[in-house]
Amino acid sequence: MGVVVQKYGGTSVGSIERIQAVAVRVQRARQEGHQVVVVVSAMAGETDRLLRLAREVSATPQAREVDALLATGEMVSIALVAMALHEVGCQAESFTGPQGGILTDNAHTQARIKHITTTRLQHALAAGVVPVVAGFQGISSGDDFTTLGRGGSDLTAVALAAALHADRCEIYTDVDGVYSADPNMVPAARRLVRISYDEMLEMARLGAKVLQARSVEFAKKYDVPVVVKSSFTEGSGTLVTRPEQDMERVVVAGVTSDRNQAKITLTRVADRPGIAAKLFGRIAAADIVVDMIIQNASEGGLTDISFTVSRSDAQQALELARQSLADLGAEEATLQTNIAKVSIVGVGMQSHAGVAARMFEALAAEMINILMISTSEIKISCVIEDKYTELAVRVLHDAFQLDREER
Amino acid sequence: MGVVVQKYGGTSVGSIERIQAVAVRVQRARQEGHQVVVVVSAMAGETDRLLRLAREVSATPQAREVDALLATGEMVSIALVAMALHEVGCQAESFTGPQGGILTDNAHTQARIKHITTTRLQHALAAGVVPVVAGFQGISSGDDFTTLGRGGSDLTAVALAAALHADRCEIYTDVDGVYSADPNMVPAARRLVRISYDEMLEMARLGAKVLQARSVEFAKKYDVPVVVKSSFTEGSGTLVTRPEQDMERVVVAGVTSDRNQAKITLTRVADRPGIAAKLFGRIAAADIVVDMIIQNASEGGLTDISFTVSRSDAQQALELARQSLADLGAEEATLQTNIAKVSIVGVGMQSHAGVAARMFEALAAEMINILMISTSEIKISCVIEDKYTELAVRVLHDAFQLDREER
Repeated sequence: MGVVVQKYGGTSVGSIERIQAVAVRVQRARQEGHQVVVVVSAMAGETDRLLRLAREVSATPQAREVDALLATGEMVSIALVAMALHEVGCQAESFTGPQGGILTDNAHTQARIKHITTTRLQHALAAGVVPVVAGFQGISSGDDFTTLGRGGSDLTAVALAAALHADRCEIYTDVDGVYSADPNMVPAARRLVRISYDEMLEMARLGAKVLQARSVEFAKKYDVPVVVKSSFTEGSGTLVTRPEQDMERVVVAGVTSDRNQAKITLTRVADRPGIAAKLFGRIAAADIVVDMIIQNASEGGLTDISFTVSRSDAQQALELARQSLADLGAEEATLQTNIAKVSIVGVGMQSHAGVAARMFEALAAEMINILMISTSEIKISCVIEDKYTELAVRVLHDAFQLDREER
Repeated sequence: MGVVVQKYGGTSVGSIERIQAVAVRVQRARQEGHQVVVVVSAMAGETDRLLRLAREVSATPQAREVDALLATGEMVSIALVAMALHEVGCQAESFTGPQGGILTDNAHTQARIKHITTTRLQHALAAGVVPVVAGFQGISSGDDFTTLGRGGSDLTAVALAAALHADRCEIYTDVDGVYSADPNMVPAARRLVRISYDEMLEMARLGAKVLQARSVEFAKKYDVPVVVKSSFTEGSGTLVTRPEQDMERVVVAGVTSDRNQAKITLTRVADRPGIAAKLFGRIAAADIVVDMIIQNASEGGLTDISFTVSRSDAQQALELARQSLADLGAEEATLQTNIAKVSIVGVGMQSHAGVAARMFEALAAEMINILMISTSEIKISCVIEDKYTELAVRVLHDAFQLDREER
């Protein structure tokens, strides 16, 4: 009898009725012959409520105490889900992260899983008991609660699936799968039947919110099949899996957009070796992640450098850039926040020519100006003015016929 | 430098402002030269909110899951209090019951403390850190959360004070001490400066809500001085301590009342040996606690038996009594719920004659009929019609001059 890990997010356990619906779904999977391990998030809104309380007490609460506080959110969910399972006649026991054997490093609020001791969970499974495990949390070597960062419950589920050699990990959320584009922008968007780990990773990084990137990396590393499904409707969802030959038949799997972008430009920078290292070393030291970097062709020994960061980091990055002006012999640093990044993702790009050209043409046909471009093996991203975001996503979806391709 | 354990109840940590006030008070005790260990309850209303959630999921939630759920209430408090302490410049760390080394038996929702491993707490104290420990909770030998029953945070505090050989245990609550009577009933009621463990125990059992009886038993057993104080006002509170010679100078320490009473009477019971055993064995088997029992003098081989139970158990006890009628050869069983118990408590009774007579006279002078009487070495209780409760408490307070005696 195979093990299936089912993870339910905050909206899926957001009320008593929904918790009861989770219990029914778990019980059904058991009746279908699976051993089920359940991973749950805090009830929707609970983590934010707890963070608000912390912020009322302190502008800079210590990370250890934030983790101790946030851990309670998932603990409420596991107890209630275990009770609901009993109500439908299914033996169940709640497990905190520590009880579930989820050992992490000591990096509070951003801990990484080091090891999972599955003894207690396996005992429960062997006894016919459904373990209901708190997502997002673990225990440090110092015996303190840790948390895995936003979206960490996905990671808990995938890591447990790997540790328990589960047949698959099912992620239940409020959408019924991964889409070729955000259906709110593109009514013709289609649910993908399958997507490769690498494509899912790129889409997660590029703005698709359905799965946390770290959990996809983990699934890829341990080859855990992940299924993204809705907890509110029936349907087979989207299977995230290792790439298969015929996936490449389709050039583009999906289109994503990300408005959380800001662009900083330094003009008339002295075009000397070491200039970029100086600037970006300073920015990295402030823990700001730089996404794209573009340096224009030099004119008379002077060049422009542009780079993008997330909007929340924009002001700080601008300050750092301004402080570097003298060092760099640059004229000025300017900030542009009305930009967005649209991207196309697909393993098929590797074997199809002219994909970039088709993307640029589609945008040009709508007079959408491309401000920056960045590419990898399986994705092409363009920065554009953010007012064109929806339009750009729609025309790209159209250009690559994503409404028609069965994937 | 002596250790002081300070316990703050739910209303004392009921809001962010109150949590900040707790931090200020703790910091002051440190500046006065004490090593402080803080024990906190869940924020006021939180435990009830969690229990409501559980009841919405299940009419009969499993005790293990109830404990896992309730444990989160105190965990929120400890994290917030530790943050608030940092804000006032005081190093602090939160400890769940398990982290605080509070080992219990496996009796979920009513666990008993078996042992306290103080290693982590002593490390914290040695490092100048204030441990903030979750009250009411511990860990079973099976590594599960347990809870100690209502009022269990008092017990946590007293047990920690004993284990850490603290100078004293301060219980901060919403009243400024133990009173000679409920001030809502008796405006002239006085705060007691001192009270013996046994008196406090009787008063707790007889209706005074200020301290949980089990924590007083524990304090007596390990000779921990307990101070009951208000967290909202200044004042020296009431010291609960071992009896001292001069305490007996005062006959009565306090007057209590308890309306949670119901009386069941069986009439015309055959007056044979073994009758009482049969009846009360049956009631005990249903886990119903019987308080007073009175059997009237026999008339012609027939007698009446009356006993009292708490009102919540009354209907079930009546049913059981009715089922026993045939066995007992009794005529009928009747239930009376409009009754209350008023009691006087004081170690001085042991060395003063005529206390009971003075009590009965005081009630008789107001035409208050006594339905049942029960006595112990240091208390006398009378059951009366409940409409006379306040009046009875006031006349007893007067009769023993509790508004005048300095204690």
